[in-house]
Amino acid sequence: MFDRVAFVGFGLIGSSLARIMIRDGLAGHISVTARTQATLDTVTRLELADSVTLDATEAVRDADLIMICTPLGAYGAVAKEIGPHLKDGAIVSDVGSAKQIVSREIVPHMPDGVHVVPGHPVAGTENSGPEAGFAELFMGRNCILTPDDGVAEQAIEKISALWKAAGMSVEMMSAHHHDQVLAITSHLPQLIAYTIVDTAEQLGEDLKHEVIKYSAGGFRDFTRIAASDPTMWRDIYLENSDALLDILGRFNEDLTHMRRAIRRGDGDTLHEVFTRTRAIRRGIIDAKQDKLEDQKT
Amino acid sequence: MFDRVAFVGFGLIGSSLARIMIRDGLAGHISVTARTQATLDTVTRLELADSVTLDATEAVRDADLIMICTPLGAYGAVAKEIGPHLKDGAIVSDVGSAKQIVSREIVPHMPDGVHVVPGHPVAGTENSGPEAGFAELFMGRNCILTPDDGVAEQAIEKISALWKAAGMSVEMMSAHHHDQVLAITSHLPQLIAYTIVDTAEQLGEDLKHEVIKYSAGGFRDFTRIAASDPTMWRDIYLENSDALLDILGRFNEDLTHMRRAIRRGDGDTLHEVFTRTRAIRRGIIDAKQDKLEDQKT
Repeated sequence: MFDRVAFVGFGLIGSSLARIMIRDGLAGHISVTARTQATLDTVTRLELADSVTLDATEAVRDADLIMICTPLGAYGAVAKEIGPHLKDGAIVSDVGSAKQIVSREIVPHMPDGVHVVPGHPVAGTENSGPEAGFAELFMGRNCILTPDDGVAEQAIEKISALWKAAGMSVEMMSAHHHDQVLAITSHLPQLIAYTIVDTAEQLGEDLKHEVIKYSAGGFRDFTRIAASDPTMWRDIYLENSDALLDILGRFNEDLTHMRRAIRRGDGDTLHEVFTRTRAIRRGIIDAKQDKLEDQKT
Repeated sequence: MFDRVAFVGFGLIGSSLARIMIRDGLAGHISVTARTQATLDTVTRLELADSVTLDATEAVRDADLIMICTPLGAYGAVAKEIGPHLKDGAIVSDVGSAKQIVSREIVPHMPDGVHVVPGHPVAGTENSGPEAGFAELFMGRNCILTPDDGVAEQAIEKISALWKAAGMSVEMMSAHHHDQVLAITSHLPQLIAYTIVDTAEQLGEDLKHEVIKYSAGGFRDFTRIAASDPTMWRDIYLENSDALLDILGRFNEDLTHMRRAIRRGDGDTLHEVFTRTRAIRRGIIDAKQDKLEDQKT
Protein backbone atom coordinates (compact mmCIF):
# COMPACT_ATOMS: atom_id res chain seq x y z
CA MET A 1 0.00 0.00 0.00
CA PHE A 2 2.91 2.32 0.85
CA ASP A 3 6.56 1.97 -0.14
CA ARG A 4 7.87 3.83 2.83
CA VAL A 5 6.05 4.80 6.04
CA ALA A 6 7.44 7.03 8.79
CA PHE A 7 5.98 7.10 12.29
CA VAL A 8 6.70 10.24 14.28
CA GLY A 9 5.93 9.22 17.84
CA PHE A 10 5.11 5.60 18.56
CA GLY A 11 2.77 4.84 21.43
CA LEU A 12 -0.33 2.69 21.78
CA ILE A 13 -1.95 3.85 18.53
CA GLY A 14 1.15 4.11 16.34
CA SER A 15 2.53 0.76 17.42
CA SER A 16 -0.85 -0.93 16.92
CA LEU A 17 -1.04 0.44 13.38
CA ALA A 18 2.53 -0.68 12.67
CA ARG A 19 1.65 -4.18 13.84
CA ILE A 20 -1.15 -4.25 11.27
CA MET A 21 1.12 -2.94 8.51
CA ILE A 22 3.62 -5.69 9.27
CA ARG A 23 0.95 -8.38 9.58
CA ASP A 24 -0.69 -7.45 6.28
CA GLY A 25 2.44 -6.31 4.41
CA LEU A 26 1.09 -2.77 3.87
CA ALA A 27 4.46 -0.99 4.01
CA GLY A 28 7.73 -1.73 2.19
CA HIS A 29 9.75 0.00 4.90
CA ILE A 30 8.73 1.34 8.31
CA SER A 31 10.88 3.98 9.97
CA VAL A 32 10.17 5.16 13.50
CA THR A 33 11.36 8.30 15.20
CA ALA A 34 10.64 9.09 18.84
CA ARG A 35 11.76 11.50 21.50
CA THR A 36 13.84 9.05 23.55
CA GLN A 37 16.35 6.32 22.79
CA ALA A 38 14.55 4.12 25.30
CA THR A 39 11.44 4.11 23.11
CA LEU A 40 13.50 3.33 20.03
CA ASP A 41 15.20 0.46 21.84
CA THR A 42 11.80 -0.95 22.69
CA VAL A 43 10.68 -0.63 19.06
CA THR A 44 13.79 -2.49 17.94
CA ARG A 45 13.29 -5.20 20.53
CA LEU A 46 9.66 -5.65 19.46
CA GLU A 47 10.77 -5.73 15.81
CA LEU A 48 8.17 -3.16 14.80
CA ALA A 49 10.36 -1.07 12.47
CA ASP A 50 12.90 -1.47 9.68
CA SER A 51 14.82 1.55 10.93
CA VAL A 52 14.73 3.77 14.01
CA THR A 53 16.26 7.20 14.57
CA LEU A 54 16.10 10.10 17.01
CA ASP A 55 16.30 12.43 14.00
CA ALA A 56 12.80 13.12 12.68
CA THR A 57 14.09 14.64 9.45
CA GLU A 58 15.94 11.42 8.68
CA ALA A 59 12.89 9.29 9.45
CA VAL A 60 10.58 11.16 7.09
CA ARG A 61 12.99 11.41 4.16
CA ASP A 62 11.51 9.69 1.07
CA ALA A 63 8.48 8.57 3.05
CA ASP A 64 5.17 8.24 1.15
CA LEU A 65 3.21 8.34 4.37
CA ILE A 66 4.14 10.23 7.52
CA MET A 67 1.95 9.24 10.45
CA ILE A 68 2.18 11.69 13.35
CA CYS A 69 1.44 9.82 16.58
CA THR A 70 2.78 12.25 19.19
CA PRO A 71 0.73 14.03 21.83
CA LEU A 72 -1.06 17.06 20.34
CA GLY A 73 1.27 19.48 22.11
CA ALA A 74 4.17 18.40 19.88
CA TYR A 75 2.34 18.92 16.56
CA GLY A 76 3.62 22.42 15.82
CA ALA A 77 7.26 21.64 16.54
CA VAL A 78 7.15 18.34 14.65
CA ALA A 79 5.54 19.91 11.58
CA LYS A 80 8.05 22.75 11.55
CA GLU A 81 10.94 20.32 11.81
CA ILE A 82 9.88 17.79 9.18
CA GLY A 83 8.13 20.13 6.70
CA PRO A 84 11.21 21.04 4.62
CA HIS A 85 12.28 17.39 4.34
CA LEU A 86 9.08 15.92 2.94
CA LYS A 87 8.96 14.27 -0.45
CA ASP A 88 6.71 15.83 -3.08
CA GLY A 89 3.39 13.97 -3.10
CA ALA A 90 3.83 12.61 0.42
CA ILE A 91 0.76 12.15 2.63
CA VAL A 92 0.87 13.46 6.19
CA SER A 93 -1.72 12.07 8.59
CA ASP A 94 -2.15 11.83 12.35
CA VAL A 95 -4.16 9.98 14.99
CA GLY A 96 -4.91 12.78 17.46
CA SER A 97 -8.11 13.13 19.47
CA ALA A 98 -8.64 16.80 18.50
CA LYS A 99 -8.68 17.75 14.84
CA GLN A 100 -8.92 21.53 14.39
CA ILE A 101 -5.36 21.65 15.66
CA VAL A 102 -4.08 20.05 12.44
CA SER A 103 -5.06 23.01 10.25
CA ARG A 104 -3.67 25.36 12.87
CA GLU A 105 -0.39 23.67 13.77
CA ILE A 106 0.58 21.29 10.96
CA VAL A 107 -0.78 22.59 7.65
CA PRO A 108 1.08 25.95 7.72
CA HIS A 109 4.44 24.15 7.83
CA MET A 110 3.73 21.82 4.90
CA PRO A 111 5.25 22.51 1.48
CA ASP A 112 3.06 22.54 -1.63
CA GLY A 113 2.54 19.07 -3.06
CA VAL A 114 2.19 17.43 0.37
CA HIS A 115 -1.31 16.12 1.23
CA VAL A 116 -2.59 16.50 4.78
CA VAL A 117 -5.33 14.05 5.82
CA PRO A 118 -6.09 14.38 9.54
CA GLY A 119 -7.44 11.21 11.11
CA HIS A 120 -8.76 9.99 14.43
CA PRO A 121 -9.14 6.25 14.99
CA VAL A 122 -11.64 6.24 17.86
CA ALA A 123 -10.18 3.38 19.85
CA GLY A 124 -7.80 2.98 22.73
CA THR A 125 -7.08 1.54 26.11
CA GLU A 126 -5.80 3.25 29.21
CA ASN A 127 -2.37 1.76 28.57
CA SER A 128 0.33 3.65 26.71
CA GLY A 129 3.63 3.08 24.95
CA PRO A 130 4.71 0.75 22.12
CA GLU A 131 4.41 -2.36 24.27
CA ALA A 132 0.74 -1.68 24.93
CA GLY A 133 -0.19 -1.84 21.24
CA PHE A 134 -1.94 -4.78 19.56
CA ALA A 135 -3.21 -5.32 16.04
CA GLU A 136 -6.86 -5.88 17.04
CA LEU A 137 -7.19 -2.50 18.77
CA PHE A 138 -9.17 -0.89 15.95
CA MET A 139 -11.45 -3.79 14.96
CA GLY A 140 -15.07 -2.76 14.54
CA ARG A 141 -14.48 0.84 15.68
CA ASN A 142 -14.87 4.10 13.76
CA CYS A 143 -12.15 6.23 12.25
CA ILE A 144 -12.95 9.87 11.52
CA LEU A 145 -11.09 11.73 8.77
CA THR A 146 -11.31 15.52 8.63
CA PRO A 147 -9.50 16.66 5.48
CA ASP A 148 -9.80 20.33 4.51
CA ASP A 149 -11.63 21.22 1.28
CA GLY A 150 -9.43 20.72 -1.74
CA VAL A 151 -7.23 17.93 -0.39
CA ALA A 152 -6.51 15.39 -3.16
CA GLU A 153 -9.16 12.67 -3.25
CA GLN A 154 -6.49 10.05 -3.91
CA ALA A 155 -4.68 10.86 -0.66
CA ILE A 156 -7.93 10.63 1.30
CA GLU A 157 -8.65 7.28 -0.34
CA LYS A 158 -5.30 5.85 0.69
CA ILE A 159 -5.70 6.83 4.33
CA SER A 160 -9.24 5.53 4.25
CA ALA A 161 -8.07 2.19 2.85
CA LEU A 162 -5.40 1.95 5.54
CA TRP A 163 -7.87 2.28 8.41
CA LYS A 164 -10.31 -0.07 6.72
CA ALA A 165 -7.50 -2.62 6.59
CA ALA A 166 -7.24 -2.13 10.36
CA GLY A 167 -10.88 -3.17 10.65
CA MET A 168 -12.42 0.29 11.04
CA SER A 169 -15.43 2.03 9.51
CA VAL A 170 -14.23 5.31 8.04
CA GLU A 171 -16.30 8.50 8.26
CA MET A 172 -15.72 12.05 7.08
CA MET A 173 -16.69 15.18 8.95
CA SER A 174 -15.43 18.68 9.51
CA ALA A 175 -12.70 19.14 12.09
CA HIS A 176 -14.94 21.51 14.02
CA HIS A 177 -17.79 19.01 14.19
CA HIS A 178 -15.37 16.24 15.20
CA ASP A 179 -14.13 18.29 18.10
CA GLN A 180 -17.67 18.93 19.29
CA VAL A 181 -18.69 15.27 19.14
CA LEU A 182 -15.54 14.03 20.84
CA ALA A 183 -15.81 16.65 23.58
CA ILE A 184 -18.98 14.86 24.65
CA THR A 185 -18.18 11.22 23.96
CA SER A 186 -14.60 11.20 25.11
CA HIS A 187 -13.06 14.35 26.53
CA LEU A 188 -15.72 15.14 29.12
CA PRO A 189 -16.11 11.54 30.40
CA GLN A 190 -12.35 11.32 30.71
CA LEU A 191 -12.15 14.60 32.63
CA ILE A 192 -14.93 13.51 34.96
CA ALA A 193 -13.19 10.21 35.62
CA TYR A 194 -9.93 11.96 36.41
CA THR A 195 -11.72 14.36 38.72
CA ILE A 196 -13.72 11.83 40.68
CA VAL A 197 -10.69 9.63 41.22
CA ASP A 198 -8.73 12.66 42.35
CA THR A 199 -11.53 13.61 44.74
CA ALA A 200 -11.15 10.15 46.28
CA GLU A 201 -7.37 10.44 46.24
CA GLN A 202 -7.54 13.49 48.46
CA LEU A 203 -9.62 11.85 51.17
CA GLY A 204 -8.01 10.86 54.46
CA GLU A 205 -5.81 7.75 54.34
CA ASP A 206 -8.27 5.51 56.20
CA LEU A 207 -11.15 6.34 53.94
CA LYS A 208 -8.93 6.09 50.85
CA HIS A 209 -7.90 2.57 51.81
CA GLU A 210 -11.53 1.54 51.98
CA VAL A 211 -12.40 3.31 48.76
CA ILE A 212 -9.87 1.06 47.06
CA LYS A 213 -11.17 -2.00 48.85
CA TYR A 214 -14.83 -1.48 48.01
CA SER A 215 -14.37 -0.21 44.50
CA ALA A 216 -16.43 -2.91 42.82
CA GLY A 217 -19.09 -0.37 41.87
CA GLY A 218 -18.88 2.34 39.22
CA PHE A 219 -15.74 3.77 40.76
CA ARG A 220 -13.63 0.93 39.42
CA ASP A 221 -14.54 1.83 35.84
CA PHE A 222 -13.59 5.42 36.54
CA THR A 223 -10.19 4.47 37.89
CA ARG A 224 -9.49 2.44 34.78
CA ILE A 225 -10.29 5.43 32.59
CA ALA A 226 -8.31 7.71 34.91
CA ALA A 227 -5.16 5.63 34.47
CA SER A 228 -4.71 6.92 30.90
CA ASP A 229 -1.68 8.82 29.66
CA PRO A 230 -1.48 12.23 31.43
CA THR A 231 0.43 14.06 28.70
CA MET A 232 -1.87 12.96 25.93
CA TRP A 233 -4.91 14.07 27.86
CA ARG A 234 -3.42 17.35 29.07
CA ASP A 235 -2.84 18.27 25.42
CA ILE A 236 -6.35 17.28 24.39
CA TYR A 237 -7.85 19.60 27.01
CA LEU A 238 -5.60 22.46 26.06
CA GLU A 239 -6.33 22.02 22.35
CA ASN A 240 -10.06 21.38 22.48
CA SER A 241 -10.89 23.74 25.32
CA ASP A 242 -13.71 25.66 23.61
CA ALA A 243 -15.87 22.64 22.84
CA LEU A 244 -15.04 21.07 26.18
CA LEU A 245 -15.86 24.15 28.26
CA ASP A 246 -19.20 24.40 26.47
CA ILE A 247 -20.20 20.83 27.21
CA LEU A 248 -18.78 21.07 30.74
CA GLY A 249 -21.09 24.02 31.34
CA ARG A 250 -24.10 21.94 30.30
CA PHE A 251 -22.97 19.03 32.44
CA ASN A 252 -22.58 21.31 35.44
CA GLU A 253 -26.12 22.60 35.05
CA ASP A 254 -27.44 19.06 34.82
CA LEU A 255 -25.48 17.93 37.86
CA THR A 256 -26.75 20.90 39.87
CA HIS A 257 -30.27 19.90 38.84
CA MET A 258 -29.66 16.38 40.21
CA ARG A 259 -28.11 17.70 43.39
CA ARG A 260 -31.10 19.92 43.97
CA ALA A 261 -33.45 16.96 43.48
CA ILE A 262 -31.48 14.89 46.00
CA ARG A 263 -31.39 17.68 48.57
CA ARG A 264 -35.16 18.19 48.22
CA GLY A 265 -35.96 14.48 48.23
CA ASP A 266 -37.51 14.80 44.77
CA GLY A 267 -37.53 11.14 43.74
CA ASP A 268 -39.69 11.72 40.65
CA THR A 269 -37.07 13.89 38.97
CA LEU A 270 -34.35 11.35 39.75
CA HIS A 271 -36.40 8.45 38.44
CA GLU A 272 -37.25 10.32 35.26
CA VAL A 273 -33.61 11.06 34.45
CA PHE A 274 -32.45 7.53 35.33
CA THR A 275 -35.07 6.08 33.01
CA ARG A 276 -34.17 8.38 30.13
CA THR A 277 -30.51 7.39 30.21
CA ARG A 278 -31.30 3.74 29.51
CA ALA A 279 -32.38 4.69 25.99
CA ILE A 280 -28.90 5.89 25.06
CA ARG A 281 -27.37 2.65 26.25
CA ARG A 282 -29.81 0.74 24.10
CA GLY A 283 -28.79 2.89 21.14
CA ILE A 284 -25.13 2.08 21.67
CA ILE A 285 -25.75 -1.63 21.88
CA ASP A 286 -27.89 -1.42 18.72
CA ALA A 287 -25.08 0.51 17.00
CA LYS A 288 -22.78 -2.39 17.94
CA GLN A 289 -20.38 -0.04 19.72
CA ASP A 290 -20.44 -2.36 22.66
CA LYS A 291 -20.90 -6.06 23.16
CA LEU A 292 -23.54 -7.48 25.42
CA GLU A 293 -20.86 -9.54 27.14
CA ASP A 294 -19.13 -6.33 28.17
CA GLN A 295 -22.12 -5.49 30.29
CA LYS A 296 -21.13 -7.42 33.36
CA THR A 297 -19.17 -5.24 35.74
CA MET B 1 -27.54 -23.92 56.57
CA PHE B 2 -31.17 -22.74 56.84
CA ASP B 3 -34.33 -24.82 57.02
CA ARG B 4 -36.53 -22.18 55.46
CA VAL B 5 -35.50 -19.01 53.64
CA ALA B 6 -37.86 -16.25 52.50
CA PHE B 7 -36.89 -13.70 49.88
CA VAL B 8 -38.87 -10.47 49.96
CA GLY B 9 -38.17 -8.94 46.55
CA PHE B 10 -36.22 -10.96 44.03
CA GLY B 11 -34.08 -9.06 41.53
CA LEU B 12 -30.49 -9.39 40.39
CA ILE B 13 -29.04 -9.84 43.89
CA GLY B 14 -31.78 -11.94 45.45
CA SER B 15 -32.01 -14.31 42.50
CA SER B 16 -28.22 -14.71 42.36
CA LEU B 17 -28.14 -15.61 46.04
CA ALA B 18 -31.01 -18.08 45.56
CA ARG B 19 -29.09 -19.72 42.70
CA ILE B 20 -26.17 -20.27 45.11
CA MET B 21 -28.45 -21.65 47.82
CA ILE B 22 -29.91 -24.13 45.35
CA ARG B 23 -26.51 -25.05 43.88
CA ASP B 24 -24.97 -25.67 47.31
CA GLY B 25 -28.08 -26.95 49.09
CA LEU B 26 -28.00 -24.17 51.70
CA ALA B 27 -31.77 -23.93 52.18
CA GLY B 28 -34.35 -26.64 52.88
CA HIS B 29 -37.14 -24.52 51.43
CA ILE B 30 -37.03 -21.22 49.52
CA SER B 31 -40.11 -19.05 49.41
CA VAL B 32 -40.25 -15.92 47.31
CA THR B 33 -42.61 -13.01 47.55
CA ALA B 34 -42.63 -10.11 45.12
CA ARG B 35 -44.83 -7.20 44.20
CA THR B 36 -46.11 -8.56 40.89
CA GLN B 37 -47.41 -11.89 39.66
CA ALA B 38 -45.21 -11.49 36.56
CA THR B 39 -42.08 -11.66 38.72
CA LEU B 40 -43.40 -14.71 40.55
CA ASP B 41 -44.17 -16.41 37.23
CA THR B 42 -40.59 -15.78 36.15
CA VAL B 43 -39.29 -17.23 39.42
CA THR B 44 -41.41 -20.33 38.91
CA ARG B 45 -40.29 -20.71 35.31
CA LEU B 46 -36.63 -20.38 36.35
CA GLU B 47 -37.23 -22.91 39.16
CA LEU B 48 -35.62 -20.69 41.75
CA ALA B 49 -38.14 -21.21 44.56
CA ASP B 50 -40.04 -23.98 46.31
CA SER B 51 -43.01 -21.67 46.78
CA VAL B 52 -44.05 -18.25 45.55
CA THR B 53 -46.72 -15.89 46.85
CA LEU B 54 -47.86 -12.29 46.54
CA ASP B 55 -48.54 -12.32 50.28
CA ALA B 56 -45.37 -11.38 52.14
CA THR B 57 -46.78 -12.51 55.48
CA GLU B 58 -47.29 -15.98 54.07
CA ALA B 59 -43.79 -16.10 52.58
CA VAL B 60 -42.03 -15.23 55.85
CA ARG B 61 -44.08 -17.54 58.09
CA ASP B 62 -41.77 -20.08 59.80
CA ALA B 63 -38.74 -18.75 57.90
CA ASP B 64 -35.36 -18.94 59.66
CA LEU B 65 -33.91 -16.34 57.35
CA ILE B 66 -35.77 -13.45 55.75
CA MET B 67 -33.69 -11.77 53.06
CA ILE B 68 -35.08 -8.37 52.07
CA CYS B 69 -34.08 -7.66 48.46
CA THR B 70 -36.45 -4.83 47.56
CA PRO B 71 -35.45 -1.27 46.67
CA LEU B 72 -34.69 0.74 49.82
CA GLY B 73 -37.89 2.75 49.47
CA ALA B 74 -39.97 -0.32 50.33
CA TYR B 75 -38.11 -1.21 53.55
CA GLY B 76 -40.44 0.55 55.99
CA ALA B 77 -43.63 -0.89 54.51
CA VAL B 78 -42.17 -4.39 54.19
CA ALA B 79 -40.90 -4.41 57.78
CA LYS B 80 -44.22 -3.20 59.13
CA GLU B 81 -46.09 -5.85 57.17
CA ILE B 82 -43.94 -8.86 57.99
CA GLY B 83 -42.85 -7.93 61.54
CA PRO B 84 -45.83 -9.49 63.38
CA HIS B 85 -45.50 -12.74 61.41
CA LEU B 86 -41.86 -13.55 62.08
CA LYS B 87 -40.81 -16.65 63.94
CA ASP B 88 -39.00 -16.23 67.23
CA GLY B 89 -35.26 -16.48 66.59
CA ALA B 90 -35.54 -15.63 62.88
CA ILE B 91 -32.77 -13.65 61.21
CA VAL B 92 -33.71 -10.67 59.05
CA SER B 93 -31.07 -9.46 56.63
CA ASP B 94 -30.98 -7.32 53.48
CA VAL B 95 -28.75 -6.50 50.51
CA GLY B 96 -29.29 -2.75 50.18
CA SER B 97 -26.65 -0.23 49.13
CA ALA B 98 -27.33 2.11 52.06
CA LYS B 99 -27.23 0.78 55.59
CA GLN B 100 -28.29 3.40 58.13
CA ILE B 101 -31.79 2.98 56.76
CA VAL B 102 -32.07 -0.50 58.31
CA SER B 103 -31.97 0.80 61.88
CA ARG B 104 -34.36 3.55 60.92
CA GLU B 105 -36.92 1.68 58.83
CA ILE B 106 -36.68 -2.02 59.66
CA VAL B 107 -35.53 -2.49 63.26
CA PRO B 108 -38.44 -0.56 64.88
CA HIS B 109 -40.94 -3.01 63.36
CA MET B 110 -39.16 -6.16 64.50
CA PRO B 111 -40.45 -8.14 67.49
CA ASP B 112 -38.12 -9.15 70.31
CA GLY B 113 -36.24 -12.37 69.53
CA VAL B 114 -35.70 -11.50 65.87
CA HIS B 115 -32.09 -10.78 64.85
CA VAL B 116 -31.39 -8.02 62.33
CA VAL B 117 -28.09 -8.31 60.43
CA PRO B 118 -27.90 -5.67 57.67
CA GLY B 119 -25.70 -6.66 54.77
CA HIS B 120 -24.41 -5.23 51.52
CA PRO B 121 -22.81 -7.57 48.98
CA VAL B 122 -20.77 -5.08 46.94
CA ALA B 123 -21.35 -6.58 43.52
CA GLY B 124 -23.74 -6.08 40.67
CA THR B 125 -24.29 -5.45 37.01
CA GLU B 126 -26.46 -2.85 35.33
CA ASN B 127 -29.02 -5.53 34.59
CA SER B 128 -31.98 -6.12 36.86
CA GLY B 129 -34.66 -8.67 37.57
CA PRO B 130 -34.56 -12.39 38.43
CA GLU B 131 -33.43 -13.39 34.93
CA ALA B 132 -30.30 -11.23 35.23
CA GLY B 133 -28.98 -13.13 38.25
CA PHE B 134 -26.16 -15.66 38.16
CA ALA B 135 -24.39 -17.66 40.85
CA GLU B 136 -20.91 -16.23 40.17
CA LEU B 137 -21.96 -12.60 40.71
CA PHE B 138 -20.39 -12.33 44.15
CA MET B 139 -17.15 -14.27 43.59
CA GLY B 140 -14.08 -12.47 44.95
CA ARG B 141 -16.02 -9.37 46.00
CA ASN B 142 -16.60 -7.89 49.44
CA CYS B 143 -19.70 -8.10 51.57
CA ILE B 144 -20.15 -5.52 54.32
CA LEU B 145 -22.23 -6.34 57.38
CA THR B 146 -23.35 -3.53 59.67
CA PRO B 147 -25.10 -5.10 62.68
CA ASP B 148 -25.97 -2.82 65.58
CA ASP B 149 -24.27 -3.37 68.94
CA GLY B 150 -25.84 -6.22 70.86
CA VAL B 151 -27.02 -8.31 67.92
CA ALA B 152 -26.52 -12.02 68.64
CA GLU B 153 -23.10 -13.19 67.50
CA GLN B 154 -24.60 -16.42 66.23
CA ALA B 155 -26.92 -14.60 63.81
CA ILE B 156 -24.01 -12.52 62.45
CA GLU B 157 -22.01 -15.71 61.99
CA LYS B 158 -24.74 -17.34 59.94
CA ILE B 159 -25.09 -14.39 57.56
CA SER B 160 -21.33 -14.17 57.32
CA ALA B 161 -21.09 -17.88 56.44
CA LEU B 162 -23.78 -17.45 53.79
CA TRP B 163 -21.90 -14.71 51.93
CA LYS B 164 -18.64 -16.60 52.28
CA ALA B 165 -20.34 -19.52 50.59
CA ALA B 166 -21.15 -17.11 47.76
CA GLY B 167 -17.42 -16.45 47.38
CA MET B 168 -17.24 -13.13 49.22
CA SER B 169 -14.90 -11.65 51.80
CA VAL B 170 -16.98 -10.47 54.72
CA GLU B 171 -16.20 -7.25 56.60
CA MET B 172 -17.84 -5.48 59.51
CA MET B 173 -18.24 -1.75 59.87
CA SER B 174 -20.72 0.74 61.26
CA ALA B 175 -23.69 1.60 59.08
CA HIS B 176 -22.62 5.25 59.13
CA HIS B 177 -19.14 4.48 57.90
CA HIS B 178 -20.51 2.15 55.22
CA ASP B 179 -22.72 4.90 53.88
CA GLN B 180 -19.76 7.30 53.68
CA VAL B 181 -17.51 4.85 51.84
CA LEU B 182 -20.19 3.79 49.38
CA ALA B 183 -21.16 7.39 48.66
CA ILE B 184 -17.71 7.77 47.15
CA THR B 185 -17.10 4.39 45.54
CA SER B 186 -20.54 3.78 44.18
CA HIS B 187 -23.24 6.41 44.65
CA LEU B 188 -21.33 9.40 43.30
CA PRO B 189 -19.86 7.60 40.24
CA GLN B 190 -23.31 6.29 39.43
CA LEU B 191 -24.85 9.76 39.72
CA ILE B 192 -22.15 11.25 37.51
CA ALA B 193 -22.68 8.56 34.91
CA TYR B 194 -26.42 9.16 34.90
CA THR B 195 -25.87 12.89 34.58
CA ILE B 196 -23.35 12.83 31.76
CA VAL B 197 -25.44 10.42 29.73
CA ASP B 198 -28.47 12.64 30.30
CA THR B 199 -26.48 15.69 29.21
CA ALA B 200 -25.79 13.86 25.96
CA GLU B 201 -29.40 12.70 25.72
CA GLN B 202 -30.57 16.30 25.67
CA LEU B 203 -28.38 17.34 22.76
CA GLY B 204 -29.93 17.88 19.34
CA GLU B 205 -30.87 14.71 17.44
CA ASP B 206 -28.01 14.98 14.93
CA LEU B 207 -25.36 15.32 17.56
CA LYS B 208 -26.97 12.60 19.69
CA HIS B 209 -26.83 10.17 16.81
CA GLU B 210 -23.11 10.77 16.48
CA VAL B 211 -22.54 10.58 20.20
CA ILE B 212 -23.89 7.05 20.05
CA LYS B 213 -21.83 6.23 16.99
CA TYR B 214 -18.52 7.43 18.38
CA SER B 215 -18.97 6.22 21.91
CA ALA B 216 -15.94 3.94 21.94
CA GLY B 217 -14.22 6.23 24.46
CA GLY B 218 -15.07 6.72 28.11
CA PHE B 219 -18.67 7.55 27.34
CA ARG B 220 -19.48 3.94 26.58
CA ASP B 221 -18.53 2.91 30.11
CA PHE B 222 -20.76 5.65 31.47
CA THR B 223 -23.74 4.50 29.44
CA ARG B 224 -23.31 0.98 30.75
CA ILE B 225 -23.37 2.26 34.33
CA ALA B 226 -26.28 4.58 33.50
CA ALA B 227 -28.43 1.68 32.31
CA SER B 228 -28.89 0.46 35.90
CA ASP B 229 -32.23 0.12 37.64
CA PRO B 230 -33.82 3.58 38.11
CA THR B 231 -35.93 2.74 41.16
CA MET B 232 -33.08 1.14 43.06
CA TRP B 233 -30.86 4.14 42.48
CA ARG B 234 -33.52 6.74 43.18
CA ASP B 235 -34.00 5.16 46.59
CA ILE B 236 -30.27 5.06 47.28
CA TYR B 237 -29.96 8.79 46.64
CA LEU B 238 -32.97 9.60 48.78
CA GLU B 239 -31.72 7.40 51.62
CA ASN B 240 -28.04 8.30 51.59
CA SER B 241 -28.40 11.95 50.70
CA ASP B 242 -26.26 13.38 53.51
CA ALA B 243 -23.11 11.45 52.67
CA LEU B 244 -23.70 11.90 48.97
CA LEU B 245 -24.25 15.66 49.11
CA ASP B 246 -21.03 15.99 51.11
CA ILE B 247 -18.92 14.10 48.57
CA LEU B 248 -20.73 15.79 45.68
CA GLY B 249 -19.67 19.14 47.13
CA ARG B 250 -16.04 18.05 47.14
CA PHE B 251 -16.31 16.71 43.62
CA ASN B 252 -17.82 19.98 42.43
CA GLU B 253 -14.93 21.94 43.89
CA ASP B 254 -12.43 19.65 42.20
CA LEU B 255 -14.22 19.86 38.86
CA THR B 256 -14.28 23.65 39.06
CA HIS B 257 -10.55 23.54 39.72
CA MET B 258 -10.03 21.50 36.54
CA ARG B 259 -12.32 23.72 34.54
CA ARG B 260 -10.38 26.77 35.65
CA ALA B 261 -7.10 25.11 34.61
CA ILE B 262 -8.51 24.31 31.18
CA ARG B 263 -9.86 27.81 30.67
CA ARG B 264 -6.49 29.31 31.67
CA GLY B 265 -4.46 26.85 29.63
CA ASP B 266 -2.74 25.65 32.82
CA GLY B 267 -1.29 22.36 31.58
CA ASP B 268 0.85 21.77 34.67
CA THR B 269 -2.16 21.52 36.96
CA LEU B 270 -3.89 19.11 34.58
CA HIS B 271 -0.82 16.92 34.23
CA GLU B 272 -0.31 16.81 37.99
CA VAL B 273 -3.87 15.64 38.65
CA PHE B 274 -3.82 13.10 35.79
CA THR B 275 -0.61 11.61 37.15
CA ARG B 276 -1.92 11.38 40.71
CA THR B 277 -4.99 9.41 39.67
CA ARG B 278 -2.91 6.56 38.28
CA ALA B 279 -1.82 5.66 41.81
CA ILE B 280 -5.37 4.83 42.86
CA ARG B 281 -5.80 2.54 39.87
CA ARG B 282 -2.62 0.76 40.84
CA GLY B 283 -3.99 0.32 44.37
CA ILE B 284 -7.17 -1.25 43.04
CA ILE B 285 -5.30 -3.70 40.85
CA ASP B 286 -3.07 -4.58 43.81
CA ALA B 287 -6.16 -5.09 45.95
CA LYS B 288 -7.38 -7.51 43.27
CA GLN B 289 -10.65 -5.61 42.87
CA ASP B 290 -10.08 -5.67 39.15
CA LYS B 291 -8.37 -7.94 36.71
CA LEU B 292 -5.67 -6.79 34.37
CA GLU B 293 -7.58 -8.33 31.48
CA ASP B 294 -10.45 -5.99 32.23
CA GLN B 295 -8.22 -3.09 31.32
CA LYS B 296 -8.82 -3.15 27.61
CA THR B 297 -11.71 -0.90 26.69
